[in-house]
Amino acid sequence: MYTEKVIEEFTNPENVGELADADAVGEAGSPTCGDIMKIYLKVEDDRITDARFQTFGCAAAIASSSMATRMILGMTVTEAWNLSNVDVVDALGGLPEPKVHCSLLARDAIRAAIDDLRNRQ
Amino acid sequence: MYTEKVIEEFTNPENVGELADADAVGEAGSPTCGDIMKIYLKVEDDRITDARFQTFGCAAAIASSSMATRMILGMTVTEAWNLSNVDVVDALGGLPEPKVHCSLLARDAIRAAIDDLRNRQ
Ligand code: FES
Repeated sequence: MYTEKVIEEFTNPENVGELADADAVGEAGSPTCGDIMKIYLKVEDDRITDARFQTFGCAAAIASSSMATRMILGMTVTEAWNLSNVDVVDALGGLPEPKVHCSLLARDAIRAAIDDLRNRQ
Repeated sequence: MYTEKVIEEFTNPENVGELADADAVGEAGSPTCGDIMKIYLKVEDDRITDARFQTFGCAAAIASSSMATRMILGMTVTEAWNLSNVDVVDALGGLPEPKVHCSLLARDAIRAAIDDLRNRQ
């Protein structure tokens, strides 16, 4: 059902936790399953220098968020905003169709954090 | 969002894994989120003597299944069939409304395993 990459990211997720000194925090909820994702960002000179996530979501949500937070490191804020969940799903080698919605959680939380960043600036 | 009991069961779940010599195996899927749950049972003299579960589901699914598999140990097969997800949710001190469907996965997988048991007998 899941690719090896998904199982690997799920069993050894990176960037789990919170950032006490985050420059921005974003939260998103899934209308499909009710799960919630929180993303913390550190930003320097318009680039993402650190990212962490917290969720009670499923394996697909954890794998997608681990992958997404790794992908946005070093990106400009605009590049991170434009990261699509399809890019994340591709990097995971695919997700079973009923779990694709879980990858939206990370994208939505990243965008919410970028909104928060712009509000603070 | 989650009770202490849910967090405790999620972070230290019991009965995770499979039983190589199971007397019955049941699988259930959630139409809401697409997650899948698999339950393995050992049964002696009509009583559940061992139970394990496997899932890539969310924290609520893991907490409910940990709790449900603990609750059915020692029950007769009929008592285990009658375990409702409300009993499990109560034992967890409640679940957030959008996550109640996750507790159905354990109940449905237990019932599928009991169907399997009856088919084998
Ligand atoms: S959201 Fe799928 S089991 Fe909880």
